[in-house]
Amino acid sequence: MYSKNISELLAKINANYGDFIKIEKSGRHYEGILMPPPEIGDSDAIIIKLKNGYNIGVSYDASMAVSLIEKSKWKKKETKVKLNFDKKKSDVALISTGGTITSKVDYETGGVSSLMKAEELISLVPEIVEWANLEIVTPFSRMSESISPKDWQQLAKATFKELKKRDAIIITHGTDTLHYTAAALSFMIRNLNKPIILTAAQRSSDRGSTDAALNLLCSSIAASKLDIAEVSICMHANISDDFCYLLRGTKVRKMHSSARNAFRPINTLPIAEVWPDGKINILSDYKKSSDLEAKLDNKYEEKVALVKIYPGINSDVLDYYIDRGYKGLILEAFGLGHVPTETREKKHSLYNSIKMAIERGIFVGFAAQTLYGSLNPYVYSSGRKMLDLGVVYLKDMLPEVALVKLGWVLAHSKNIEETKALMLKNIAGEFNDKITAEQFLY
Amino acid sequence: MYSKNISELLAKINANYGDFIKIEKSGRHYEGILMPPPEIGDSDAIIIKLKNGYNIGVSYDASMAVSLIEKSKWKKKETKVKLNFDKKKSDVALISTGGTITSKVDYETGGVSSLMKAEELISLVPEIVEWANLEIVTPFSRMSESISPKDWQQLAKATFKELKKRDAIIITHGTDTLHYTAAALSFMIRNLNKPIILTAAQRSSDRGSTDAALNLLCSSIAASKLDIAEVSICMHANISDDFCYLLRGTKVRKMHSSARNAFRPINTLPIAEVWPDGKINILSDYKKSSDLEAKLDNKYEEKVALVKIYPGINSDVLDYYIDRGYKGLILEAFGLGHVPTETREKKHSLYNSIKMAIERGIFVGFAAQTLYGSLNPYVYSSGRKMLDLGVVYLKDMLPEVALVKLGWVLAHSKNIEETKALMLKNIAGEFNDKITAEQFLY
Repeated sequence: MYSKNISELLAKINANYGDFIKIEKSGRHYEGILMPPPEIGDSDAIIIKLKNGYNIGVSYDASMAVSLIEKSKWKKKETKVKLNFDKKKSDVALISTGGTITSKVDYETGGVSSLMKAEELISLVPEIVEWANLEIVTPFSRMSESISPKDWQQLAKATFKELKKRDAIIITHGTDTLHYTAAALSFMIRNLNKPIILTAAQRSSDRGSTDAALNLLCSSIAASKLDIAEVSICMHANISDDFCYLLRGTKVRKMHSSARNAFRPINTLPIAEVWPDGKINILSDYKKSSDLEAKLDNKYEEKVALVKIYPGINSDVLDYYIDRGYKGLILEAFGLGHVPTETREKKHSLYNSIKMAIERGIFVGFAAQTLYGSLNPYVYSSGRKMLDLGVVYLKDMLPEVALVKLGWVLAHSKNIEETKALMLKNIAGEFNDKITAEQFLY
Repeated sequence: MYSKNISELLAKINANYGDFIKIEKSGRHYEGILMPPPEIGDSDAIIIKLKNGYNIGVSYDASMAVSLIEKSKWKKKETKVKLNFDKKKSDVALISTGGTITSKVDYETGGVSSLMKAEELISLVPEIVEWANLEIVTPFSRMSESISPKDWQQLAKATFKELKKRDAIIITHGTDTLHYTAAALSFMIRNLNKPIILTAAQRSSDRGSTDAALNLLCSSIAASKLDIAEVSICMHANISDDFCYLLRGTKVRKMHSSARNAFRPINTLPIAEVWPDGKINILSDYKKSSDLEAKLDNKYEEKVALVKIYPGINSDVLDYYIDRGYKGLILEAFGLGHVPTETREKKHSLYNSIKMAIERGIFVGFAAQTLYGSLNPYVYSSGRKMLDLGVVYLKDMLPEVALVKLGWVLAHSKNIEETKALMLKNIAGEFNDKITAEQFLY
């Protein structure tokens, strides 16, 4: 609820949510669309949506003045898309799971939420049907921050089902954990023989600056034209609206909270540039489509954790996972793969806890906190010490990918030796032995 | 120890550690310096240091052949540096704390370890004394992965003591946690009136590709020439050996495990380019030196933790910190500041645990897992929900810096309101309100 002061101010000018208003306070002006207050508690700030699409809160002040510029013209749109099947085009399933790409601002309830039906997506970018026959499937709808391994399993199953009938798959998803899901699908569908392309939007589809249209269009082009048999992410390459990158699902990370070009390749190059006019420029090797028969293999062990190491971390934290019966841990280690071991105080050394975890049969793998570059246990004595304990150095695999892979591997291996071997085997392009300087901060 | 097979192979050619040898196996050749085996356990791989400075292990094979190319010429060098005091130059304390920059390979014990005395550093880069009168101080020597908050406190104290007598301070340190220490000093020394420059090396000083010399030289130039009153990091700007960047101590991160240009500015530009010929190009605003009287303020609350959030994280993990009496938590959240709240299973929702933590007076702050970009709780309803609970959105502050700052703030605030206010106050340049596209992946 808005506080009493604010409610009175707004009542005076008869403002409703969605109206365009002006706030004057301490010599500054703010203009934007009046948004509803937060759902819980009292808000002593007026929340407005600025022209750039962001919301701000202007806190109450006795000297503040509010005026109405324009009443809301917003209303729910009816959308109807007619899809004609065209035998000459690829058959693509568009699997919609929620996220910003299927969101718009609802001025009645406030904020952005998943409202848009996938059909509306197509009305947003009618060009996509020029490239493919699209059928929409919605296994579930969930903002991506709340997606968990069981959702990955369900999505893998739904994707696998469509794979059998279609030429390619496009999945729409929230951006927050898009790269985790891309990694999960990379492992959960074996012998992949067709493109699976995940796409998303950083700005909701009703905003002028939305990236949804270009991302969807480029995804359709890649899905229908490229002979790729990998799980990949297709998103804006830069901050202009000119083309997208196709990025390997196991070598990609959301590196910016809001920019449209947030998804970047890590320790590799993009697979391709995809242009809205249909042009595709290949930038690196990829797995070609084949006659292999795809296999659903979505077993997953949930007792895995990712622990970021920092100076002063207490070794008790690792004991917590050991006591709780976790089967595997990925530690985000410093530099080439180091953790505190020769600390001033014993409680800050992780040596004994890692030793104990390994003695109990728990897999312990190190991944790079730096994100870029590869681990190497041989350079410093602290690295060799960890190797001797039985820690597995996961080279240039991203920590997030290492976590997802570990859950998958543990559900498939009979013993710790097999787990170690599978974690070091390049199953879905998660390792790159030839990292170049060009790939740093690409 | 090397395994029996390997020991026999090496004994046959009478090879000692440090000798240059050749290994032939399965049609491939490897040449390098024979290194001692790992300290613990049996090694069935011969470890050699390649010409590029990296160590590899070549695992035993019955068909393997080993030959001696050249006996070791390595011997410990005696170094003597004469330091003449020159009244016209700046007085700089070089505080040595260990790390690769003060390391070299010891072919008797194997691996890289902290052997070099700081005096030897100067013999490595004699040019640095052209810029400043250097006096060397060694409060402790520790590889940086094992540095903990008590080391930060001691270093702050040693630095403060030198600050009173000198014109500037240079600190040598390991790279792994250099950015954490830079953040700690940024908060622990108040009213800073002179430059404090941290520097390090990614490749040890006895390697051809070492970055130690340029980093030290540029640090001395910045320390003696620049009127800056900030804690900063001075390291290679790119992979050539041509110049360094001076980077704000609260806006910098080690972004690559091995590259010499691993330290990058995050959500800001470098403060300056520093060239070995003495040229300094200013790239952004900085705090100028002043007549303020610096103050040591190194109190620190160790009961703080950094928790990286991932899909499938169990809310029990947060309960562990609550039960253990932690005073503050930094959660590395997804996207604009989201964590799982509307999950398929309740155990994966963090809502109740965050609520409980806050009810018990524990500070909960969100920082960006994407590293680049700023948080914004107003865009999605899940953000506004967290804000309503009392979570503090730490804008564009790096998660690592947020952790360090939180330990410092909690030791200085009387209640949760003061903690929240201090965490959002820009104390040492940790926030940047005007992030530009140029600053992404700089």
